[in-house]
Amino acid sequence: MIKITLPDGSIREYEAGVSSMDIAKSISEGLARKVLAAKVNGEVWDLSRPIRTDSNLTLLTWDDADGKSTFWHSSAHLMAEAIQAAFPQAKFWVGPAIDKGFYYDIDLGDSKISDDDLLSLEKKMSELAKQSNAYTRKEMPKAEAVAYFTEKGDEYKLDLLQNLNDGEITFYTQGDFTDLCRGPHIPHTGFIKAIKLTSIAGAYWKGNENNKQLTRIYGVTFPNQKELDEYLLMLEEAKKRDHRKLGKELGIYTMDDDTGQGLPLWLPNGGVVIEELEKLAKETEHAAGYKRVVTPHIAKESMYLTSGHLPYYADSMFPPMELDGTKYYLKAMNCPHHHKIFDAEPKSYKDLPYRIAEYGTCYRYEQSGELFGLMRVRCLHMNDAHIYCSKEQFAQEFRAVNDMYLKYFKIFGIDKYVMRLSLHDPAKLGQKYVNEPALWEQTESMVRKVLIESDIPFVEVQDEAAFYGPKIDVQIWSAIGREFTLATNQVDFNSGNKFKLSYTTQQNATEVPLIIHRAPLGTHERFIGFLLEHYAGKFPTWLAPLQVKILPISDKFMEYGQAVLEKLKKADIRAEIDDRNEKIGKKIRDTEMMKVPYMLVVGEKEMLEGKVSVRRQGKGDLGALPVTDVINGLKAEISERRSD
Amino acid sequence: MIKITLPDGSIREYEAGVSSMDIAKSISEGLARKVLAAKVNGEVWDLSRPIRTDSNLTLLTWDDADGKSTFWHSSAHLMAEAIQAAFPQAKFWVGPAIDKGFYYDIDLGDSKISDDDLLSLEKKMSELAKQSNAYTRKEMPKAEAVAYFTEKGDEYKLDLLQNLNDGEITFYTQGDFTDLCRGPHIPHTGFIKAIKLTSIAGAYWKGNENNKQLTRIYGVTFPNQKELDEYLLMLEEAKKRDHRKLGKELGIYTMDDDTGQGLPLWLPNGGVVIEELEKLAKETEHAAGYKRVVTPHIAKESMYLTSGHLPYYADSMFPPMELDGTKYYLKAMNCPHHHKIFDAEPKSYKDLPYRIAEYGTCYRYEQSGELFGLMRVRCLHMNDAHIYCSKEQFAQEFRAVNDMYLKYFKIFGIDKYVMRLSLHDPAKLGQKYVNEPALWEQTESMVRKVLIESDIPFVEVQDEAAFYGPKIDVQIWSAIGREFTLATNQVDFNSGNKFKLSYTTQQNATEVPLIIHRAPLGTHERFIGFLLEHYAGKFPTWLAPLQVKILPISDKFMEYGQAVLEKLKKADIRAEIDDRNEKIGKKIRDTEMMKVPYMLVVGEKEMLEGKVSVRRQGKGDLGALPVTDVINGLKAEISERRSD
Repeated sequence: MIKITLPDGSIREYEAGVSSMDIAKSISEGLARKVLAAKVNGEVWDLSRPIRTDSNLTLLTWDDADGKSTFWHSSAHLMAEAIQAAFPQAKFWVGPAIDKGFYYDIDLGDSKISDDDLLSLEKKMSELAKQSNAYTRKEMPKAEAVAYFTEKGDEYKLDLLQNLNDGEITFYTQGDFTDLCRGPHIPHTGFIKAIKLTSIAGAYWKGNENNKQLTRIYGVTFPNQKELDEYLLMLEEAKKRDHRKLGKELGIYTMDDDTGQGLPLWLPNGGVVIEELEKLAKETEHAAGYKRVVTPHIAKESMYLTSGHLPYYADSMFPPMELDGTKYYLKAMNCPHHHKIFDAEPKSYKDLPYRIAEYGTCYRYEQSGELFGLMRVRCLHMNDAHIYCSKEQFAQEFRAVNDMYLKYFKIFGIDKYVMRLSLHDPAKLGQKYVNEPALWEQTESMVRKVLIESDIPFVEVQDEAAFYGPKIDVQIWSAIGREFTLATNQVDFNSGNKFKLSYTTQQNATEVPLIIHRAPLGTHERFIGFLLEHYAGKFPTWLAPLQVKILPISDKFMEYGQAVLEKLKKADIRAEIDDRNEKIGKKIRDTEMMKVPYMLVVGEKEMLEGKVSVRRQGKGDLGALPVTDVINGLKAEISERRSD
Repeated sequence: MIKITLPDGSIREYEAGVSSMDIAKSISEGLARKVLAAKVNGEVWDLSRPIRTDSNLTLLTWDDADGKSTFWHSSAHLMAEAIQAAFPQAKFWVGPAIDKGFYYDIDLGDSKISDDDLLSLEKKMSELAKQSNAYTRKEMPKAEAVAYFTEKGDEYKLDLLQNLNDGEITFYTQGDFTDLCRGPHIPHTGFIKAIKLTSIAGAYWKGNENNKQLTRIYGVTFPNQKELDEYLLMLEEAKKRDHRKLGKELGIYTMDDDTGQGLPLWLPNGGVVIEELEKLAKETEHAAGYKRVVTPHIAKESMYLTSGHLPYYADSMFPPMELDGTKYYLKAMNCPHHHKIFDAEPKSYKDLPYRIAEYGTCYRYEQSGELFGLMRVRCLHMNDAHIYCSKEQFAQEFRAVNDMYLKYFKIFGIDKYVMRLSLHDPAKLGQKYVNEPALWEQTESMVRKVLIESDIPFVEVQDEAAFYGPKIDVQIWSAIGREFTLATNQVDFNSGNKFKLSYTTQQNATEVPLIIHRAPLGTHERFIGFLLEHYAGKFPTWLAPLQVKILPISDKFMEYGQAVLEKLKKADIRAEIDDRNEKIGKKIRDTEMMKVPYMLVVGEKEMLEGKVSVRRQGKGDLGALPVTDVINGLKAEISERRSD
């Protein structure tokens, strides 16, 4: 008998060789109908694979990220089966699951594929799915696999085989399609009930532009039609809210060829949003005891050799500038500079926690094909800070950082979020992870404890920590349900040593501080991109580049309108007057286009009564109100950063 | 007879061949006793040199910058004479006048020179000066000059001769010393009444570290002892106020080897000063109708080819980074990026004046030997903005910029300042200056008119304009009378064309905007360096990193002190409490060292009465006051940015 430990800590005994599916069935038939794959000792397995030793087991359904990704990877195989039926000469490279769906890179030989073909492929996939063909796994010796693909003339799979050894080579078959694949897969194709192939793109083999261009087909599948419909609706809404489109229409940012790709120039309206975000961050950080520093955007090679970013991270950095025989690099992160600031003056326990913040601008190299609006850029204005603290202070500091996240989520109306806690793998200490087993255990359990106590939704992921400590990725969902990775929150017990940072304890000993890296608002680029979609460009008043537009019904009321404008400006409200000789209807329409939160219409009646007629974006006419009341209301709304 | 036009426009007639000294004497004996050199048609000449054609003449005295620099260059020759007497084997490279004084680079062969030698050299110089030896000029054919120095074995002067042609070679002799020199010089050594040799340094020949190291001796001279005494006093005071010393003591900034030379890291206290300066700038610019933008720190080579910075300015820029076959440069100025922002959206006359501001960080290459604290750096946080306007709007915009300068001067207690208006030279149109004679005339006279009408002290300098328009350098004096060049203010009627910027006029025509480049607060680096000296580190309360320190007389009053601290913090006053177990005397001394504007002492009496005893930095004890009164007073002092 073997012991199977379930996520709730309960232990069940089974015969050795039991499968996860057997276990699911032994728990409940309902569960067995839903389960897609299983996580066995941290590794995702097919449900049918026998378990032979005591193990930790998590049964994965559609609600688990790993469940979804298994589902999508199996869908890629299903798509390949349909493609093989339509294009028998097709050769397949790789077909992974991605954030939302899957793709497969295919060499179609001389054939071309068009958007119209996608529909018939979808249809074929549906047919094949309905056959509920099992995904079956088969191990194969390398020699046999090589012989198989050599005979087939499939240079792609032969290339993949080069890096595999005997014992690592498995094939999966469903229906008429067999693929070299590590797996795992869902039990059978019948789970795939709703299919959408979304686009066709070109992709160089292995991402190298000197190689042949393959055809990449993207798709997404769901276990029911309703979820697909919702997803397509969300995509449509996301298209309307596309931050690139809104960014242009609202004068937020521009891109320019002479400046360079992935380097946004922030126009005046974007400048306002940036200022307001920075003001919020500075106020919040000031109240939380952070001090502000300013550091240059470059440093010598030696800095990054010390930090360890060079040579390992070099591909993500801009190439060096060589000056007087020394290499200088644009900084890709602010931490090394901040460590130097910690180190500039001697520190004692009285100086800790030492919290330093900077909206630091970093530069990272992303391949030009990867650049995407504000979401993937090469210039990043980061809401960065580093907290240097003792082990005793860690839990409280980390909790305070989480509280700050929650405070921001509330301000921005982010209702759905989850923290993804990435942990180390003890088997990889000294290789992928700094070899400090005790510190890993300690910080991971501290972080877990804080997350549980703060009642923050979180998931744990094995073997995805940073080199120097556990990592928390913050994932948020926009108003239309799209997921964004906002920021990373990291615990670092290694850089202190690398930079020889220390402080004197109360007992006059020398200690190395723990470091927390945190950036709750992420980067301006990504966060403003997110907000544009989240608010559909209709920023809350405190964030809106233009908060109020005064619309005189005719030139006769221009003077009164100007007087109102002056009062608004004196109250530090961002306001303008529409002094064009246009009909009021057109003025209202144009202002609505620019998504200005408030329109104040002024005509005869308003002038005589010292009032303005208030139109609230999205709410319509609120009636005529005294100017002072309107201003007081606006001031309160703005200073409280209200979202309504 | 020739016509001599004096600076006041009056014209006098003299025999051709008259010397400037003759003319001075013809005006007044008093003037003749003071005059040091003459500017003839824009060129500085010896007083004795004959004038043969109609000319413009300015007689130069100690009060003129060119008078001083002639005086100091002649002093360098006097020093060389004294050195030659003491070290007959000495060979001389070059001995120019500098900002304040002069130096000479000398090859002393195997001899060494020490600080003690400087005193005897000074003594020798005084002796020689008293001989009132005339500086006499002699032209010499190149061949003769080469023969002379070849015989002398003087490789340095032979090197200089390489770049000179017949007709350009002149020698100057005073007493026993003869030097290859372009001149001009003062009439005789008797003018030099007060002498101080200030320091000895090493200097590589031609600034190249592969060459031999020469001995550089710095000195300064004056026409009377009083001015030297004042100068030495000022130097002593400047030493106490050295921004590098204060910058370290007060935790303003640090330099770090791994970051790189000339790249200050701003510590938390410096971060506060930066925040306050930016807040001031943002408020001021907001009120003046500027909008804020944010641009990246890099751009592609093509940007700087368009702007014309490449190739001409390449030596002052960091070397390029080559990415995907494209060269990227760190920006050395913000203008090209701002031009792109102007160009991002179509503009009409209604959008003008379009004023965009950014505290843009630029990077400029300065040789490592030139770097000096915050004064000469490679990273510059610039209080930058560009104003795009029509010709009609120019005068008003330019005046508003000047008003902003004056407003800042008042806030910072800068009483002495002068604007140096650099004009073009009509003879160099199409070469050194963009070939737009009408625009030059127009903008120069507009600028001059505004300066006169605003009653701003200014001087005009010929032939020092920027390529694209007249330039105004702003010179200010610190509290101890040291001069700083703060910022440059430029009119630009060329970049608009280069970047193809345009706007639609009311008549629906297309016009190119005029551009004003302006940076009233210069760079954080230089301005904070200036302020450290100007205030001797004793920042006014609004700028002080720490505004208030609460000093409990003993632990018994710590709780009361904490309550006062909370009140101060709530009022947004930067305050701390000295919670050390130390005597009150030591607490006061330590706080004074850190130059905190206010100390609030709390003891038994204060606690019982709800008061604090106020000690104002530099003013001493102000007595016990109710906490609320103190907070209200502080809030007013801070919000008004008072300097007292």
